[in-house]
Amino acid sequence: MENASPPQDLVADVFARDCTSRAAFEDVTAKWASLVLLALGEGSFRFNALRRKVEGVSEKMLSQTLQALERDGMLTREVVTAIPPRVEYELTELGAQVSGKLQGLAELLEASAGQVGLARERYAQRA
Amino acid sequence: MENASPPQDLVADVFARDCTSRAAFEDVTAKWASLVLLALGEGSFRFNALRRKVEGVSEKMLSQTLQALERDGMLTREVVTAIPPRVEYELTELGAQVSGKLQGLAELLEASAGQVGLARERYAQRA
Repeated sequence: MENASPPQDLVADVFARDCTSRAAFEDVTAKWASLVLLALGEGSFRFNALRRKVEGVSEKMLSQTLQALERDGMLTREVVTAIPPRVEYELTELGAQVSGKLQGLAELLEASAGQVGLARERYAQRA
Repeated sequence: MENASPPQDLVADVFARDCTSRAAFEDVTAKWASLVLLALGEGSFRFNALRRKVEGVSEKMLSQTLQALERDGMLTREVVTAIPPRVEYELTELGAQVSGKLQGLAELLEASAGQVGLARERYAQRA
């Protein structure tokens, strides 16, 4: 029985290629996923409203992103029986925690946008 | 003079396609960038040591990632004149702040790896 423990009992490490935490970290920081998680931090969204909020995302990419995040347990997809029927996406408790961490990162970068712009100018002049 | 203010005086918004903060957010959450920022949060690294730490990254991708992060002012690249000469990468103050935010996210996902694994099993059984 010595080696029978499931992988989740090992110490998780985002640097380890085969760790679930690494996969989850990559999923939530994927190109559109982080913006979707940030948006849903403001409340539940219908597909088209979410697409307008996350400027530039295609229908296909948004759909794939939502599926990956649902698979990881970050959000739920609920079909509301109305006329016409609609689909709503909402964060789970874990998704809300992840969204909160990303919110902190987004706020830092929004506050540092001028600094990043200056760094880019200096880099361009040097090259 | 009314429209002469530089873009960094506007309110930054990661959801806006043309905002520097959106570009910076995408750069620091890019596939390898976030792991590189996390690693450098532990101290300065030489290229090959960084490559070993971030399991799975290719030489080319690591090189491109470091360049993008240097351009955004997240890290510095220092050539140390020794025999043999070596190149060291170190976070700037802004890079360290960003790394701290990513560290919080990584710790949350490491602590939730089991939960994500269960969510994936449930999703697979449903499909």
